[in-house]
Amino acid sequence: MTTSHDVAKLAGVSQSTVSRALRGLPGISERTRRDIERAAEMLAYVPSEAGRSLSTRRTRTIGVVAAELTNPFFPELVEPMRAEFERLGYRVLLIPDSSEAPLEIDRLADGTLDGVIITTVMLGSQLPHRLAARQIPFVLANRDIDGIDADTVVLDNQLGGRMVASLLADLGHVKVAAILGPPDTSVGRDRGIGFQQGLSDRGIALLPSRVRSGPFTYETGYRATLELLATPEPPTAIFCGNDVIAFGACNAAATRGLTPGRDLTIIGFDDIEMSAWDLFQITTVNGDMVGMAEMAARLLIQHIDAVDSAPQRLTLTPRLVLRGTHAPPPN
Amino acid sequence: MTTSHDVAKLAGVSQSTVSRALRGLPGISERTRRDIERAAEMLAYVPSEAGRSLSTRRTRTIGVVAAELTNPFFPELVEPMRAEFERLGYRVLLIPDSSEAPLEIDRLADGTLDGVIITTVMLGSQLPHRLAARQIPFVLANRDIDGIDADTVVLDNQLGGRMVASLLADLGHVKVAAILGPPDTSVGRDRGIGFQQGLSDRGIALLPSRVRSGPFTYETGYRATLELLATPEPPTAIFCGNDVIAFGACNAAATRGLTPGRDLTIIGFDDIEMSAWDLFQITTVNGDMVGMAEMAARLLIQHIDAVDSAPQRLTLTPRLVLRGTHAPPPN
Repeated sequence: MTTSHDVAKLAGVSQSTVSRALRGLPGISERTRRDIERAAEMLAYVPSEAGRSLSTRRTRTIGVVAAELTNPFFPELVEPMRAEFERLGYRVLLIPDSSEAPLEIDRLADGTLDGVIITTVMLGSQLPHRLAARQIPFVLANRDIDGIDADTVVLDNQLGGRMVASLLADLGHVKVAAILGPPDTSVGRDRGIGFQQGLSDRGIALLPSRVRSGPFTYETGYRATLELLATPEPPTAIFCGNDVIAFGACNAAATRGLTPGRDLTIIGFDDIEMSAWDLFQITTVNGDMVGMAEMAARLLIQHIDAVDSAPQRLTLTPRLVLRGTHAPPPN
Repeated sequence: MTTSHDVAKLAGVSQSTVSRALRGLPGISERTRRDIERAAEMLAYVPSEAGRSLSTRRTRTIGVVAAELTNPFFPELVEPMRAEFERLGYRVLLIPDSSEAPLEIDRLADGTLDGVIITTVMLGSQLPHRLAARQIPFVLANRDIDGIDADTVVLDNQLGGRMVASLLADLGHVKVAAILGPPDTSVGRDRGIGFQQGLSDRGIALLPSRVRSGPFTYETGYRATLELLATPEPPTAIFCGNDVIAFGACNAAATRGLTPGRDLTIIGFDDIEMSAWDLFQITTVNGDMVGMAEMAARLLIQHIDAVDSAPQRLTLTPRLVLRGTHAPPPN
């Protein structure tokens, strides 16, 4: 039996072009369309309804929703995701989601996407609920949403916070501070909860006056560190909600003549590539972003292939990465 | 006369949902579709052919093609572009283009995009020619292509290279090195040409043994700097093809006990945010990425609105940013 592959070969175009041309979709020149129709005629090719329906339903395109494009964390999660989707035969479109102009559901439900990965979303976001209502397959990666039963891949952020608390307690720190991410994200909230609980288990109080929070940016870390260092009893150790905040903290410490890992302990979270740079050498928590990206991609494709599959929840275990920015408190 | 706006209001949905529903496009629930059809019937709404054709032709979606997602330069160019397109009423999809799996034209010509911005492309790439052949409006941003007459927004990269050469000559450097970007990109090539010409004008030779090139990455700068410092006559100044290469160079210098801006001059290019961090304070060349992003966005929309407009070529002028990593050669 003649297949669209044979038509594509004869017409010298791709199989998807044949499929699009014979379905009358736009984006194909008149000349190419004629060539394809001629080839189909010569080979007496009849597109099967099943094949046509399948190719109509599937765009083999995945949308990845991401805010905070300028956060270096973003490409380190998205790039391995793109690579994994490519291996699985899907292309990726990145859909920026800015807080000024929140994403409308119509942008995702316009029929051009087979599924969606949501990498950044506020705890109270309605986006996942709306995707579920429209039966668009989606996976939450690195973010958790309260009150929704959806495919989710997350790091055990509370455990990560606890690990940092243990390290600081082992080193002998008592005057401890935290510069956390936004409290309305699961990542910002859970890392803080774990840290506080871990300290509490070791009999160390995290004073409210030593806790700051803000966007996951360099500025957040820089400003909060300058503030904390200007208090009458400055902390000897600062836990930062992510590595980018920790970079800001290290830079702020340097302006006050303090060397991180000698005069002041600064701990990050995420283990992005820059943390390992010689000038930083940030002690941090590794979240296995490549593993998270690949799992999220595979979970979404599973869900697309079997629409009624029960939602799965995968939790990755964090790992402490000891580098150069931790030390006992100075005497 | 009843408009789609009235139908949308009555059905309690957006105008674009009305348009999609009445055109029979996917992504709309049966229930919503029925509500819209009932509202249209009640209001005796007849979609006009002109309006239908317009809404069919325009997707108000722009594709931004970008490789090197993990290069911090990328979000700093793409984020202001996204914001500008949003102001102009367009959404943005980022289309990753990896060197392992080069972008196929079908991905851009599938009818879902009103236009395309190309931010990363090799000098010999066929992509722009193919877009032109299919009459898809596009703008080259930050990249130049030989032999094509297309809307282009670029920085005068040769002038930037010359400015760095002048600075190094003024400081008294003679043993000068360069770690350039990929020679098959206009950015990599032109910065190098300008630098060499600028040195030559001042009677300084750029020895081939002191020139390296590679991807615009930290690793490129790190490795090349270690190599250059290990030669019998190491350079006293290194011009880096972009800031990320300069970060690698600074880190490599630190591992050899050299302080950038005292023992070794290191100059970057692009002036990305990180260059201003206290720990780096990179002397660099500002390329006005925000200006470039906004100009590229406006140029594309102009082109979409007036398909037959003659291609324009806008060139931005670079500016030297003197920070902490330049100094006269040590005695």
